[in-house]
Amino acid sequence: MAIQSVPLEKAYRLLNHGPTVLVSAKYQNIENVMAASWACALEFTPAKVTVVLDKMTLTRSLVEQSGWFALQVPVVKQAQMVVDVGSESLKNHPDKLKEFGVNLFYRGDFLSPLVEGCAAWLICKLIPEPHNQQTHDLFIGEVISAWADDRVFKDGHWLFDDAPMELKTLHYVAGGQFYVIGQGLMVNKGP
Amino acid sequence: MAIQSVPLEKAYRLLNHGPTVLVSAKYQNIENVMAASWACALEFTPAKVTVVLDKMTLTRSLVEQSGWFALQVPVVKQAQMVVDVGSESLKNHPDKLKEFGVNLFYRGDFLSPLVEGCAAWLICKLIPEPHNQQTHDLFIGEVISAWADDRVFKDGHWLFDDAPMELKTLHYVAGGQFYVIGQGLMVNKGP
Repeated sequence: MAIQSVPLEKAYRLLNHGPTVLVSAKYQNIENVMAASWACALEFTPAKVTVVLDKMTLTRSLVEQSGWFALQVPVVKQAQMVVDVGSESLKNHPDKLKEFGVNLFYRGDFLSPLVEGCAAWLICKLIPEPHNQQTHDLFIGEVISAWADDRVFKDGHWLFDDAPMELKTLHYVAGGQFYVIGQGLMVNKGP
Repeated sequence: MAIQSVPLEKAYRLLNHGPTVLVSAKYQNIENVMAASWACALEFTPAKVTVVLDKMTLTRSLVEQSGWFALQVPVVKQAQMVVDVGSESLKNHPDKLKEFGVNLFYRGDFLSPLVEGCAAWLICKLIPEPHNQQTHDLFIGEVISAWADDRVFKDGHWLFDDAPMELKTLHYVAGGQFYVIGQGLMVNKGP
């Protein structure tokens, strides 16, 4: 397994099939990770994303203060952790990351913490939009760097048909229930 | 099979697992349908959604002029149609809907056309936001009514584990390639 760079113009493909994501951020010495279902690509070039961050979350304030966040795409073997970091706040669980087995790492000079074991990572610079943030809890980021685990994403394509179950992406519904991404389906794209 | 109402506070669950959607709209006598991967829930109550609509698309102008749109969740048996309506414009294919086998229907007094054969439908009233629409091609809608095919969504839950392949949702990547939603995975949601 190796973590490979994903060209920015193909970064949207990491989110296009609608996986649940983890959102991470750091400000000063505080690192945190939360889960989010409401993350989406917004533009191809420059690559941009949206993510909804509730005012209750500590991660949101780290994003606002640092101006950076990372989205990452967790996989089946991380499902319990995704629910745990999405359910419990650092405010009540100061050792939340340790408690739930979240290991962070950093790439290059970026200050955004990344979660080990995910299928893909996107480091995003916040594009501040006070109206969207205040009224809709909607945050827009420009993707500055992206990587993927080459066992499941290579040369711009996901490889789920050949991947083991534990490396497939998670698609949350509610109440602890996910669906795992399933089989590929190729359709003729016209003449 | 019956089309059942979905309570508005659970409408987000129709989009939460990240399916590719069809966007439909009507203004005066023009009805159109396009495909979109970049649609997402935005708020639980009142239920709101976002969808990215490129300036090139005719559907966008129908949304802007009518102030209404519908999102619907297509399924495997519709995959070719999803790619077709997403690739070809009504501008060049005036009979696009007929050509690609799209049958529309209407529910109640709503003026938004709905696509037959989908798994779920959300009728949305545009919340006009000129900055988001112009700068980001981002449209926000309040969900006014929602329905689902009770073979695949019932009592607030998707039933994909028991559904035939042809009724599972589609998750687009690029170049005609989809993944189909896969198996369910239940995780304990804490103490």
